[in-house]
Amino acid sequence: SVSNGANRPATAMAREIAEIPAAAARLVGRSDEIAAIADRIRAFRPRAVVVCGRGSSGNAGVYLRYLIETQMQLLVSSAAPSIVTAYRRTPDMRGAFFVLISQSGRSPDLVSTTEVAREAGALTLAIVNDDRSPAADAADLVLPIGAGPEHAVAATKTVVLSMIAGAVLVAGITHDGGLRDGLRRLPERLQSALGCDWSQWGNSLVSAPAAFVAARGYGLGTSREIALKVTETLRLPALGYSAAELRHGPRAAITPDTPVLVLRQNDETASGVDLLVHDLREANETVFLAGGPECTLPWIGDDHPAFDPIVMLLPAYKAIEAAARQRGLDPDRPEHLSKITQTL
Amino acid sequence: SVSNGANRPATAMAREIAEIPAAAARLVGRSDEIAAIADRIRAFRPRAVVVCGRGSSGNAGVYLRYLIETQMQLLVSSAAPSIVTAYRRTPDMRGAFFVLISQSGRSPDLVSTTEVAREAGALTLAIVNDDRSPAADAADLVLPIGAGPEHAVAATKTVVLSMIAGAVLVAGITHDGGLRDGLRRLPERLQSALGCDWSQWGNSLVSAPAAFVAARGYGLGTSREIALKVTETLRLPALGYSAAELRHGPRAAITPDTPVLVLRQNDETASGVDLLVHDLREANETVFLAGGPECTLPWIGDDHPAFDPIVMLLPAYKAIEAAARQRGLDPDRPEHLSKITQTL
Repeated sequence: SVSNGANRPATAMAREIAEIPAAAARLVGRSDEIAAIADRIRAFRPRAVVVCGRGSSGNAGVYLRYLIETQMQLLVSSAAPSIVTAYRRTPDMRGAFFVLISQSGRSPDLVSTTEVAREAGALTLAIVNDDRSPAADAADLVLPIGAGPEHAVAATKTVVLSMIAGAVLVAGITHDGGLRDGLRRLPERLQSALGCDWSQWGNSLVSAPAAFVAARGYGLGTSREIALKVTETLRLPALGYSAAELRHGPRAAITPDTPVLVLRQNDETASGVDLLVHDLREANETVFLAGGPECTLPWIGDDHPAFDPIVMLLPAYKAIEAAARQRGLDPDRPEHLSKITQTL
Repeated sequence: SVSNGANRPATAMAREIAEIPAAAARLVGRSDEIAAIADRIRAFRPRAVVVCGRGSSGNAGVYLRYLIETQMQLLVSSAAPSIVTAYRRTPDMRGAFFVLISQSGRSPDLVSTTEVAREAGALTLAIVNDDRSPAADAADLVLPIGAGPEHAVAATKTVVLSMIAGAVLVAGITHDGGLRDGLRRLPERLQSALGCDWSQWGNSLVSAPAAFVAARGYGLGTSREIALKVTETLRLPALGYSAAELRHGPRAAITPDTPVLVLRQNDETASGVDLLVHDLREANETVFLAGGPECTLPWIGDDHPAFDPIVMLLPAYKAIEAAARQRGLDPDRPEHLSKITQTL
């Protein structure tokens, strides 16, 4: 049939990964619209930031946390929704800037956490794909990521676009030239990264009992996101760790059968990541390294350290999608996962 | 030999777990000393809290985070040491209360993060076992946990005592009667919990390819700590999740071979935890439930929801220690773990 032609990826997950570069170009091109939001936030002079999201959106939040702490030098707290929705306590949020990240914008507990944050004095922003969702209504400001429809239950396009939306916003607030230049190059780098074949890593997952992903700093959110996607889509327990933490205790659980994907961006965290890689290789563990001069996975070369971890998601997602099909699983409909999470 | 007599546990880890109730009684008895620290913190009127710790101490920090957000209604940020030590950026910490949790008090990156926090305007407190350590010197205030020497590399006594120190401090700041009463009962409950035999869970780990631990709210730090101890001591990849998050995507990786330990305290999070247990049982997964009316592991009965997750650590630690010996591993000297972590 036409819809399954030779050039058309067979799964929605694969198609949506392929759509990321064009969606990123549209989002980066909306910098004037986002600059207006940035002006509102700057005028508010936040004393701290709260980032709120679950699952993949929580991982985008981890990314945003590092970006805000390094670039805006504000304290960032990752919201624990249970404080508000189960314990019904409201932390003092006067002067705080609250960012909700939610693909659907429809998870009731996240909508109510946003409402409570607003009532508690925070300036609230919803980074969402659906700008007519309840979360968008609940927030003072809305930053629609414009990813278009996402049919695969395993979110890819919306995760990457949420991270980029956060980066465009931070660049708009700080006017940092390096961030702005990096963002301009980002869509093309995402397009090139689609050509990087990480199937040697993906193949190693097909028969593995578990997997590890490590990174540090800007890359930590990406390592957690890749681990989560492996857990959900390949039904394989995967642990996403800070390279610094993994190198100490949890390393004990690594064997040659449990592949370790290490993400390295070219910044002040690189030497610590190199130490982990060195130690793992000495012990003959199965290491796949992305980034840096010793890179063993196909890679397009290092660029801005705040953006390379976003770009690395694309070859990782592609490899996970292919490994899922190899394992006889449907990457579009992982068990137990739905687009809107209802949490009691 | 005398040192391996019938009544003396064979490993330092087992001996140190057995020492916890007495050490807890000493710590809870120091409430006047800790009240003086609490007065200093109340007088400072913190606008936010930063909790800093790595590994097991980081898990004690997760526990403290929930306690502070629910009881003191302040925003809590978990410090990412790499922001300060690798990226060399200092978030604005004026008016913040910074808590370092460190067993040794000697990890150089945590000492320097504390120094930087103090220079950046935070009131700093070190919760440490060694009150003559560099971390104690770096902080404005010191709360020694008084756990005594810990010889096993796998920390147990110091983790539990760090959590209790945080709870005594919060009770001293808030004067909450429920917390105070719960603390008074805590040493005896810890002693009783030593009699709870969780070897049915521990045995399930001996041949498992991976393990899951789930909890919510006050219990989340304990679930992460148990997962970390399983990973380090049994060399078994273990994932500690919020029950709410696990119930959605990551559940896909659970099979009857990957046991799930679920911790349930008697509070507003219980209904969400029950939903997870219900779903897992419907799918015939291997579930071990601690706490609540449907509890399947030996348990001393529910008490204050902020303290039961601390008490549950003891039978869990004991089961991990026994399972390590069954797997032919030395729980006192897990590979790659040292008492003082040096992080680049």
